[in-house]
Amino acid sequence: MKNINVGIVGLGRLGKEHAKNLAFRIAGVKLNAACSIVKSELEYAKKELGVQDVYSDYREMLKQADIDAVVIVTTSSEHCWQIAAALDAGKHVFSDKPLGVTIEECRLAEAAVAKHADQIFFLGFMRRFDPSYAYAKEKIKQGLIGRPYMIKATGIDPEALVEGAIKFAPTSGGIFTDMAIHDIDLMRWFLEDNPVEVYANGATFKHPEFKAANDDETGVAMYKCAKGGIGFVHVGRTASYGYHVETEIIGTEGTLRISPVPEKNLCAIYDIHGVVKECVTGFPERFAEAYRLEMENFIACIRSNKQPEVSVFDGTKSTQIAFATTTSYRNKEVIKIGY
Amino acid sequence: MKNINVGIVGLGRLGKEHAKNLAFRIAGVKLNAACSIVKSELEYAKKELGVQDVYSDYREMLKQADIDAVVIVTTSSEHCWQIAAALDAGKHVFSDKPLGVTIEECRLAEAAVAKHADQIFFLGFMRRFDPSYAYAKEKIKQGLIGRPYMIKATGIDPEALVEGAIKFAPTSGGIFTDMAIHDIDLMRWFLEDNPVEVYANGATFKHPEFKAANDDETGVAMYKCAKGGIGFVHVGRTASYGYHVETEIIGTEGTLRISPVPEKNLCAIYDIHGVVKECVTGFPERFAEAYRLEMENFIACIRSNKQPEVSVFDGTKSTQIAFATTTSYRNKEVIKIGY
Amino acid sequence: MKNINVGIVGLGRLGKEHAKNLAFRIAGVKLNAACSIVKSELEYAKKELGVQDVYSDYREMLKQADIDAVVIVTTSSEHCWQIAAALDAGKHVFSDKPLGVTIEECRLAEAAVAKHADQIFFLGFMRRFDPSYAYAKEKIKQGLIGRPYMIKATGIDPEALVEGAIKFAPTSGGIFTDMAIHDIDLMRWFLEDNPVEVYANGATFKHPEFKAANDDETGVAMYKCAKGGIGFVHVGRTASYGYHVETEIIGTEGTLRISPVPEKNLCAIYDIHGVVKECVTGFPERFAEAYRLEMENFIACIRSNKQPEVSVFDGTKSTQIAFATTTSYRNKEVIKIGY
Amino acid sequence: MKNINVGIVGLGRLGKEHAKNLAFRIAGVKLNAACSIVKSELEYAKKELGVQDVYSDYREMLKQADIDAVVIVTTSSEHCWQIAAALDAGKHVFSDKPLGVTIEECRLAEAAVAKHADQIFFLGFMRRFDPSYAYAKEKIKQGLIGRPYMIKATGIDPEALVEGAIKFAPTSGGIFTDMAIHDIDLMRWFLEDNPVEVYANGATFKHPEFKAANDDETGVAMYKCAKGGIGFVHVGRTASYGYHVETEIIGTEGTLRISPVPEKNLCAIYDIHGVVKECVTGFPERFAEAYRLEMENFIACIRSNKQPEVSVFDGTKSTQIAFATTTSYRNKEVIKIGY
Repeated sequence: MKNINVGIVGLGRLGKEHAKNLAFRIAGVKLNAACSIVKSELEYAKKELGVQDVYSDYREMLKQADIDAVVIVTTSSEHCWQIAAALDAGKHVFSDKPLGVTIEECRLAEAAVAKHADQIFFLGFMRRFDPSYAYAKEKIKQGLIGRPYMIKATGIDPEALVEGAIKFAPTSGGIFTDMAIHDIDLMRWFLEDNPVEVYANGATFKHPEFKAANDDETGVAMYKCAKGGIGFVHVGRTASYGYHVETEIIGTEGTLRISPVPEKNLCAIYDIHGVVKECVTGFPERFAEAYRLEMENFIACIRSNKQPEVSVFDGTKSTQIAFATTTSYRNKEVIKIGY
Repeated sequence: MKNINVGIVGLGRLGKEHAKNLAFRIAGVKLNAACSIVKSELEYAKKELGVQDVYSDYREMLKQADIDAVVIVTTSSEHCWQIAAALDAGKHVFSDKPLGVTIEECRLAEAAVAKHADQIFFLGFMRRFDPSYAYAKEKIKQGLIGRPYMIKATGIDPEALVEGAIKFAPTSGGIFTDMAIHDIDLMRWFLEDNPVEVYANGATFKHPEFKAANDDETGVAMYKCAKGGIGFVHVGRTASYGYHVETEIIGTEGTLRISPVPEKNLCAIYDIHGVVKECVTGFPERFAEAYRLEMENFIACIRSNKQPEVSVFDGTKSTQIAFATTTSYRNKEVIKIGY
Repeated sequence: MKNINVGIVGLGRLGKEHAKNLAFRIAGVKLNAACSIVKSELEYAKKELGVQDVYSDYREMLKQADIDAVVIVTTSSEHCWQIAAALDAGKHVFSDKPLGVTIEECRLAEAAVAKHADQIFFLGFMRRFDPSYAYAKEKIKQGLIGRPYMIKATGIDPEALVEGAIKFAPTSGGIFTDMAIHDIDLMRWFLEDNPVEVYANGATFKHPEFKAANDDETGVAMYKCAKGGIGFVHVGRTASYGYHVETEIIGTEGTLRISPVPEKNLCAIYDIHGVVKECVTGFPERFAEAYRLEMENFIACIRSNKQPEVSVFDGTKSTQIAFATTTSYRNKEVIKIGY
Repeated sequence: MKNINVGIVGLGRLGKEHAKNLAFRIAGVKLNAACSIVKSELEYAKKELGVQDVYSDYREMLKQADIDAVVIVTTSSEHCWQIAAALDAGKHVFSDKPLGVTIEECRLAEAAVAKHADQIFFLGFMRRFDPSYAYAKEKIKQGLIGRPYMIKATGIDPEALVEGAIKFAPTSGGIFTDMAIHDIDLMRWFLEDNPVEVYANGATFKHPEFKAANDDETGVAMYKCAKGGIGFVHVGRTASYGYHVETEIIGTEGTLRISPVPEKNLCAIYDIHGVVKECVTGFPERFAEAYRLEMENFIACIRSNKQPEVSVFDGTKSTQIAFATTTSYRNKEVIKIGY
């Protein structure tokens, strides 16, 4: 079994997680090259990951590095052209979500993927690989909850990280584009249905800076799907207790609820406050295993020459839905979603 | 301490609960008279409650019975005129929710209450007296979660009772009027704010009879409040696991969540299915203590000559909001709510 | 249906609870007389309970009061003679646990009960009436966990009340007599078996006053039962989080666990500490409903002329087991238990 | 950073887990050799692990393979001599628990470790590396629960695996040696104290085959420690719901409870049974991450030339305690434990 050689582009917070998984925790893969426009990230690659073949120019890496595949963890606005360039260079591609920041970009990525149908294109909706979410999907397939027809999703970042969110607010594209994309993907995945209408709203009661940036610290959206399913998404940035991602899928025969208590681990504390479960502090802690498993799956797709479950079109659709949600939120009206 | 003498009108399922509380479980009260148009219910009053002074004519009871107060547990459409008649007869009044089934009726009740400002008028939103809800309200008052700005409410009847709901559907006024009134009251109570806009939707995937009755088995509604708060209400009729009433109140400093697992009691079962909590089967089981405590509070109000926290205007408003929700649901448009 | 008239003796903390249940919360009963050697308790009876017929002499109450039954909530050392005197006076008897503080006393009570087999004798092991415990027993009867063969019991008083426990320690008879009697009763009830051997131990790490009183702040005991069942009991006095009573019953096909989190109610708090459940503060809060239900059952036993499930012999046996446990604890040896 | 080269001996169920971690999931390590007396296991090493340098003779591997360290996952009775041989050959050693099956063997291992104080010796009590247990230990170090003075431990294998346990019973050394060794280690670790006395008991109500093999399907033991701490251990083999490992540590200021519900993941099922958490099925599922982390720690110890927290003496002591427990269980008497 020959190793799959991989080059990574982008070594920020999440990029480092992916790189460590590729370098140390997945069978049959070798992290052979790394690219970043940040010098210290290339030092990191050499010293911590043992990757000597480093680049500051992405196209250079595609041309020269001994790699079968590229893992893209750059700023969202760079994803699409980097996807196309890598595919054109004959590489398999893993891109972190979202697919792109405009629909036009997404279409370019779609075209590139279509042109290279024999290469793997993998879009990083890692929640699908989280053991609890994967278990829920499996149970649904087995019919445990009958026909799933409603999803209620919550995603709240910890108050501890709010300063960054405030700084990022003016350029983030708004809370829905920024935070709801995973929930939107889960809604489509669990309901096997596409939203055709959305109505959104928001609120700010703690950090007026969000309002000042034409954004909100809390957003809610209600979706109606083509086959009649319903979605409700609640995103926010100010959970005092930690990082709260919770999802409920309601079916005709039962309900699945994932992580109502975003517990850090299996230990409960009985002390003067009562019985306490401490909570996870952020997505790297909550989804560490999911990030590893999705990358393992990417490598398995390459090896077996099978496209992954999530397609480039899923990427475009999630982005379209996030945009429609933002439009509804800004215009204060019900928005029909076309694809 | 002289006993308060009470007459009850209506001895159906909930009426019997109220009657038993009045007869046996509350200090300083005597159930002295009972009225019903159903003969067997009067037999029940004599035999099980020890009430000998029974009536089939409500006005007759008001005229003749030795009572200080009336407890109204009749069909919703009878509430308002019975409230007015009792007040005019000089009695204190407890009426089960909703206040009325038309706004006109509600206005009549409001007028009667205004005319008799020295008599107690008590509207039975019993959830406010449930120990867990009362505790949540108290914690909010103490500032535990900062400024509460969002409520997420779930109320699902058990599938085991769906036949009755189907039969009742054509005349129920729709799922929101029928089921969301308590959640609407809780939203107003916890947020101390009034919804000014609603958007609603529904779904039916199990029992097409609801669709046939121009209703749905599931309803969802998103509210925007005057001060900027947000409400989300999800009601349904087909919980396979029991009776599910859950409420979450989100504030700037924390969140309170009441009854995410609608557990029957404190016993968990570890068996071949895993670790299992059985669930409550319906509102009489879930809110037994709340029904007792609200009645205790009604008597305390009479004794101390203090009007209760919930006013007749709260009753009208809840009904107005439920109607607006139904209009949004039926017309598929965002509805502004005026009062 | 004629009322059952009751006289109560003892109006301390628990006595008041029983009295309020008798006076206000149970159908078909009238609290007609009260007796106490504490003057303020008789004032309470008159003012708060509306009982005018009060006594400072117990035998006087038995002779003169218009009562069918007596409820005994006095100091443990008074129980047995008061039971005998009441039975001799032709009254039905409810006595709080324990039956007595010496085996000799218990034998006297047994004799009195035997002599008056047509009168009801009810011993107040109220945990059997707690809805969660009663549910567990019912599930066991239905065969849900197969053959129950092991019980693990925890009973820890709140640190908040430790001052009283310290004061009481020199005369309490030791932690097992004082605190384990309910757990011992539950072990016998759930296993339908009698311990024939015990080994006990203790520890004090917080309040040396207990050691000074030849007692401990924590006690543990392991029991072997006649039919092979096993019991483990852990009692203590220093729970920082509240009042912790937990019981696990292990059977061949499953396990039941009652109250692993001694939660105050159904509300969870999500705040800077994590996700928190506040805990009950003591037995009056935890077992309020159990106290009411056992008294209701006492009245029902009188009315139907049926002896209750718990007999006077159960009372003696629990006391014998508690004594054997204390002997094992003090002598540091395995003790055989004879009956 | 040079790779650490490792050879593994034993590729059974747990051996394969260790081998996969070494081969694929840990930075800076290379699985360079494998040894087994089972031919198919060597095939597995070649095909699945990519290890070409395989041996059927352990001493041969020590002599010829290019390895810095040996990982021993053989039958317990082989551990000690293999430890000594590897240390004598200049290799660092990881041995799975228990250290040995006789105290004499353990002493030989102790001597070998003493002779090679500059080589790492690592004993595989992996629970200490489980994130929840490690978190509990950390919280204790921070003083969260004050002085820990009592541990209650439960370890029950799933009924689904009982056939193997029955077959193994006649040669297993009894339920305590077989199953309680981890709980004993945790007791010593959390209390920082050594048991000096034990009293044990057992029960069999489901599978008489255990009794026939002079063993029991359930075992309980109560420990008294040198500094006054208390331990209670409950082990069993017939959990209908899965694999149940639970540990409670009680301190003067609070309690920590790890895994009271041995939940499979974060998803709860709401269906006709109630609200259900499915459970883990066995130790490989429950402790997958712990196995990886302990091996990572072994490699880190080698790299930093620091002995691990668990010493060879901890291994001997745990074995001594397990033996004393078995003696108490078989002789039905309190046993003093000397070291």
